[in-house]
Parts: sequence; structure tokens; C-alpha cells
Amino acid sequence: METFFSFLEKRVDDCSSLLCVGLDPNISDLKEPDAASALDFCLRLVKATAPYAAAFKPNAAFFEVLGPEGWTVLKQVIDAIHAESDRFGSRIPVILDAKRGDIASTAEAYARSAFEVLGADGITLNPYLGKDSIEPFIQDREKGVFLLCKTSNPGAEDLQDLILATGETLHVHVAGLAQTWNTRNNIGLVVGATYPETLAQVRLAAPDLWFLVPGIGTQGGDLASALKAGLRQDGKGILINVSRTIARADDPRLAAAGLRDEILEIKGSILGRR
Amino acid sequence: METFFSFLEKRVDDCSSLLCVGLDPNISDLKEPDAASALDFCLRLVKATAPYAAAFKPNAAFFEVLGPEGWTVLKQVIDAIHAESDRFGSRIPVILDAKRGDIASTAEAYARSAFEVLGADGITLNPYLGKDSIEPFIQDREKGVFLLCKTSNPGAEDLQDLILATGETLHVHVAGLAQTWNTRNNIGLVVGATYPETLAQVRLAAPDLWFLVPGIGTQGGDLASALKAGLRQDGKGILINVSRTIARADDPRLAAAGLRDEILEIKGSILGRR
Repeated sequence: METFFSFLEKRVDDCSSLLCVGLDPNISDLKEPDAASALDFCLRLVKATAPYAAAFKPNAAFFEVLGPEGWTVLKQVIDAIHAESDRFGSRIPVILDAKRGDIASTAEAYARSAFEVLGADGITLNPYLGKDSIEPFIQDREKGVFLLCKTSNPGAEDLQDLILATGETLHVHVAGLAQTWNTRNNIGLVVGATYPETLAQVRLAAPDLWFLVPGIGTQGGDLASALKAGLRQDGKGILINVSRTIARADDPRLAAAGLRDEILEIKGSILGRR
Repeated sequence: METFFSFLEKRVDDCSSLLCVGLDPNISDLKEPDAASALDFCLRLVKATAPYAAAFKPNAAFFEVLGPEGWTVLKQVIDAIHAESDRFGSRIPVILDAKRGDIASTAEAYARSAFEVLGADGITLNPYLGKDSIEPFIQDREKGVFLLCKTSNPGAEDLQDLILATGETLHVHVAGLAQTWNTRNNIGLVVGATYPETLAQVRLAAPDLWFLVPGIGTQGGDLASALKAGLRQDGKGILINVSRTIARADDPRLAAAGLRDEILEIKGSILGRR
């Protein structure tokens, strides 16, 4: 049966890539501080990098801050990614980075917004409100979620690193919950690249799950250490997200191709040694 | 110096009310499933209940799901509340219930969206990403945040009730952090009404903070128990949020007036006994 992660794995095979291209139309990176420039910024990135992208991750905040027009642009960008998918004959999942988290009918409205109105395939969610806050997003097994587990910012330690009475950290506990909740093969985790030892611990707690890994490049995470710590036994299970390093490159296509190849090479050497 | 909570306290005094009116234009409550009906729904509620509202709380999800037009409506609703404030000569704070939580430039974009683009006065945030995820929202002390502490849904126990190595629950720890972080008098907490004993524990951990309390009415929370457990010594510190019970009443004005009076009466009897 098709699921969010079976689609992702097919795309990973089709493009030999574990690269997720982040779409962050931050006003400071746009020609003009308006929706038209955000659209242009994203469409150019999508066209340039689609051959090397296992997934795209538009960041909702940078569209939301543009007002109503920003949401029109976000929908246009997601449609453009689906059009590229059709061109390649290989569905490129769109993961909406929204970090939503709410309950009951409110969670249902956010799920409808992301999956039906915008047409995204997956979404990032915050786990603080628990299992029932996630349910509306995972009912359809072809849609997927990535739960925040351990983020790449300094404040991650305020809650995520707290030690529980059981001796576990909170983020490792979240990883274990997600592994248990993943009965439809459509739950993954967000785990920052900045602490490879954390990635390894989360991999132990959640051996089967896909990780969306931000923090490579501008945030200082090391690609080889992250892959070594987080790759699954099958050589999959990690999506390396890169946003600014590609978007700000002189040639985003070359930057994406280079990262795709670098990931492949490191992966090969890790699997060779296992 | 004026702060978010000094504005709220002035409004609480001006209207003798601790009632926050929730604006949830859930499609199932609208005449037609469109933005125009959502606008009509909210404007009628605002006009009817403004005299009794210490604050309004529009829920972002129900606007977001309407697509770009939903954001236009949300801005119009916030503008209408500010117009009512001018009519009363008493600023009625608008708390955007968005439960956002992200880092760095993304958090800055969400803050700009809520406070500058939409013109809200406060916002609900998820604390899972820690202090630096909150910073962009509290720089301006006239803008305020309510951090999720203990929510009113069953899944709240999955993370929020976990026992830390220190013996504290996670939600009580969050309350303590918020009390410490509140150096500008613009941080409050979201604490559900469904567990009055929890409200009392959170009040012990955060004696000074304002609580935004959902869960009265449709979710089964009891008004008197919540006020008894959560009121501060000064008879303030609790905003009782009510959404559906007012919106679905035959006469929302009467329902809001009745709730305002019921809260006042219970508060009087509690303070009389202290």
C-alpha cells in the first residue's frame, strides 16, 4: 500500500538523492520585499534544483509574513513543484515547514489547509500537545508528518534536553513515541544536524523512522557526521535539508548537484564500512 | 512603563471582565463555507460582545483554511476590534491563537506577521523550541505571548505530564521557566480549565503570570473551580476564554454578559473568603 514514505523512498531512488531543498523566501534574500519577488525566488530555485531534490520544504513563515498574497504564492510554488514532478514522472514530496500544533477541530483545520487547500504532501508538527493533536494529519497514509524532536537552535536545551525520571531525555522520549505511533508509515522526526551524538541516540530510539535534518551549512552542522549518525541500515532514513547554502549560491543548480553528489559519496563510504 | 499586561489590566478594570471571547469561524458554524461568511460571523460576534470582552482571541487555523481570503478576513476582524476599542476609549487586546514556534529568522517572520502585518497585540506560542524561539515576540514589551503550558486535550499527558528527574512535571517546569523569562511583563501561560488541581500547581510555580484558560463549557471545565485554583492574589491573572458557548448562543450578547457577570460573582465570593 502506498504511504507518504513509500512515495518519498521511490523519489529518493529515482533521483539518487537524500537532499531536501528548503524554500525560504526571506525578505532579505528577495529583490523587492513583495510577493512577486518571493514567487520568482522560489520558482527559480525549484526549476534549478528539481533534478536533485528528493523533496522540497517551503517554510510557511516567509509566505505568511507577505500577507494574503503570500499564501497565493505558496500555493503557486507547491503547484509548480507538482508540475516538475509530472515532468520527471516521479512525485517530489512537498513538506510544508509549518510546525503547527493544535487540538480537535483546530488541528483538523490546519490539516485541511496544508493538504487540501495548499496541496502539500507532508508537514512539520510540534509534538507538545500529544497524539490527538497529530491524528488529523496522519489519517490519510499518503500524507506525512515530521514531528519536532531535537531542533538545531541553542534554546533546544530548555525543554528538549530535560532529563525525565526514567533517565531518558525528553527528545529521546519523543523519538520513542513517534516510533510507536508510526503505524501507517507516515510519521518522521525533525532532528538537527548540530549534535551528531544526539542524532545517533535518536536513531537508536527510532530505528525505522525518516529524519528531516536541518542545520547543515550555515548553522554549522557537519554533513559526514550527520549521515554517519543518522542513516538507517538500508542507507535511507535521512533527508538532509539545505536552504540558504543553495539559494545564495552563484549557481543553485550546481550547488544542489554538488550536495547531492557529496551526500551520495559519503553514504557510499559509510555503507561500505558497515 | 506600558506593557502588554498593563494594557490588559486596564481593559479588565474598564469592563470589569475577565472574559476572553474566542473567534473560531469554524466552517461548520458558518452560513456558507466561505470567507465572506467567516467575516460576517466574526464581526457580529465582535459587535455583540465587545462591551464584555477583556480580550478577543481569533483562532488562526479557521482563517488559514479559507486560503488567502481568510487572511484578509483575519486582518479585517482585528481592525474591527481595534475600532471597537476606540469607540470605548479602552484598548481591547487581540490575542492571535496561532501556537507558533520556530527559530531565528523564521520566528522573526512569524512575529512580524502577527504584530505588524495583522496588527495583533498578543499571540499564543508553543514552548518546545525554547527561549530563543520566543525572543522575537517579546522584544516589544507592548506585545505579549501566552506559552502553552498545559492544554485541555487528552493528549496533553503524552508530553506535558511527564515527570522530570527533579520530580516536577514538564508543564510545571514550563511554568517556572515562563515566570523567570517574564522580565518585561509580557509573558503569560495557556492552562486548560479541565484540571483545576493542575491550575493550582501552575499558579504556585508562576505566582505572577496571567493565564489564558480555555476548556470552560463545551470541553467540560468548571468555571468556579478554575477561578478558585487560578486567580492571583490581586483578583486578576486569569482570562477565561469562551468560544462556542457564546458563538452558538441564541443571543451572543446576553451569553457574554451572563458569563462576565458569573465570573465577577464567583471572583467576589473567592476574594471575600481569602
